Amino acid sequence: MKQNRVLEQTMQTDIQRILKGDQLAGARLIRLLEEGDPDGMAGLKAIFARTGRAFILGITGPPGSGKSSLVGHMITECRRRDLKVGVVAVDPSSSLTGGAFLGDRLRMRQHTEDAGVFIRSMATRGHLGGLSTTTREVALVLDAMGYDVVMIETVGVGQDEVEIAEFAHTTIVVSLPGTGDDIQALKAGLLEIGDVYIVNKGDRPGADDEVARLQGMLEMGKRPEASWIAPVLKTVAVKGEGISKVVDACWNHRQHLLDRGLFQKHTNQQTIRLFQRLVMDLAADKIFKCNRESTAYQTLLKNLKDRKIDPVTAAENLVKNMKVKI
Amino acid sequence: MKQNRVLEQTMQTDIQRILKGDQLAGARLIRLLEEGDPDGMAGLKAIFARTGRAFILGITGPPGSGKSSLVGHMITECRRRDLKVGVVAVDPSSSLTGGAFLGDRLRMRQHTEDAGVFIRSMATRGHLGGLSTTTREVALVLDAMGYDVVMIETVGVGQDEVEIAEFAHTTIVVSLPGTGDDIQALKAGLLEIGDVYIVNKGDRPGADDEVARLQGMLEMGKRPEASWIAPVLKTVAVKGEGISKVVDACWNHRQHLLDRGLFQKHTNQQTIRLFQRLVMDLAADKIFKCNRESTAYQTLLKNLKDRKIDPVTAAENLVKNMKVKI
Repeated sequence: MKQNRVLEQTMQTDIQRILKGDQLAGARLIRLLEEGDPDGMAGLKAIFARTGRAFILGITGPPGSGKSSLVGHMITECRRRDLKVGVVAVDPSSSLTGGAFLGDRLRMRQHTEDAGVFIRSMATRGHLGGLSTTTREVALVLDAMGYDVVMIETVGVGQDEVEIAEFAHTTIVVSLPGTGDDIQALKAGLLEIGDVYIVNKGDRPGADDEVARLQGMLEMGKRPEASWIAPVLKTVAVKGEGISKVVDACWNHRQHLLDRGLFQKHTNQQTIRLFQRLVMDLAADKIFKCNRESTAYQTLLKNLKDRKIDPVTAAENLVKNMKVKI
Repeated sequence: MKQNRVLEQTMQTDIQRILKGDQLAGARLIRLLEEGDPDGMAGLKAIFARTGRAFILGITGPPGSGKSSLVGHMITECRRRDLKVGVVAVDPSSSLTGGAFLGDRLRMRQHTEDAGVFIRSMATRGHLGGLSTTTREVALVLDAMGYDVVMIETVGVGQDEVEIAEFAHTTIVVSLPGTGDDIQALKAGLLEIGDVYIVNKGDRPGADDEVARLQGMLEMGKRPEASWIAPVLKTVAVKGEGISKVVDACWNHRQHLLDRGLFQKHTNQQTIRLFQRLVMDLAADKIFKCNRESTAYQTLLKNLKDRKIDPVTAAENLVKNMKVKI
């Protein structure tokens, strides 16, 4: 009991610190959320009212396209504009190597002395990339800490890109003057999700062709009702070239959303999404925990293994008797 | 009413055809499942008792590693061994391009005249790669159709690899004599999930180094209790070189699982997984549909948007009163 009160006081103090932008306190709450600790949820409750202000910026593209360099220079540019920047880097991680070891990430280190920058590398344990389920929660913490921009960098090409595009206000898609059928197909997929396109390593031969190609494909796929025309910009991220225009383009898109009431609408949708995901998590917990001990449930599982009942009928039976109305 | 009976009869006829391996009937059921049609679920119920026999083989690796060529030649090798082969190719798709257009896939066309081969390209609509949620169901259909091996090829590097490794009995990880920090990090992640490793394009310089490197990393990360030592094989997929050894390695792994009762255990786990996912799908449907019209729920959503309540508390309130016990 006494220990609980001490813990509660620590949490209270931490919440105050987080709302003032304290990075250690912020990191502690993020760790609790990543670990699925109930205190993490308590923390989220406490900070939520102070969120909804940050501009969520997704940066995505295939491996090796130079996203980390780009993010590093974008941080510098945002700082020049007096914007506080939080970064969530969703890394491929490995239980063997004990986490990401991307060389590029080193380039972000220059920012670690700056109180206006907070970089969090999310080791999505046991997963190869993929937007961690807690990315939304972590972004809320950075939001509450007062960061004007929250950048979310995803490595990899897969489901996570779609998720990041859904979650971010503005999505930057990075590509390269490119090769290979597979890569081209992936690029085609990426054409659905970007608000700003970047051809990085723009000093390589073929960069201008790539810009033209992307513009052509975007033009071809444009919906008649679309009011935003996604720009295609050329950068040389390692040299910091073209970065200012990228930040401008993001801010233009943000303004575009604000002018049409879409910024707030998007933020609201993300709140509802998070709520719905939490409902499903809690419901799953309740459904499987509640029934785990029951003979009826154990019989059901046994019949499934023996193929005496099929999974569809089994699921229907389980859900049929649930009372879910609030 | 009459129409329902006609439909039901069609379905009955289709089920009989599917169980005899009819490809058109199989394709129809797969389409229903992909479209989330209730008839798809009815079909799944009808075939389930006849599943659980197929050897599920996952093939994964980064874009451009030559997976499709490899799969094409593996099909040929399996046919030589008189095995019937079903393939699910999970493609990046695009609403712009209307689906995958990977050149490599053309090489699989030679098999389309062969009744012992059934290739299904899953256009994961609106997603960039990523294991479609219906992949498990589609694999069950191929299983019921009598295919001895069901190969699931995933393009992309992300969450889907972990999912495929979880789902497949045996997972082949394909890599290349390689370059780039990002790619290396991804490879490190892939070291957790493979049962058989392939260095494709093995005639390129550095292929032997790559094999040695992979073997070293696998050796380093090996758990003491592990009884399977994942082999690292060199192939030149476009020329069909080394394919026979790959198929041998997969069959060795299958035998390894069978000898230890792990094959059946794995199949059972996958059934339970599918059941649990269906429970969650049905529960989500019920929870959100049941409450959509209610004033209490609408007030909850409004309060969320106004940030008067946080998503954690809102979710807790909703789930608290649910009755879920069977």
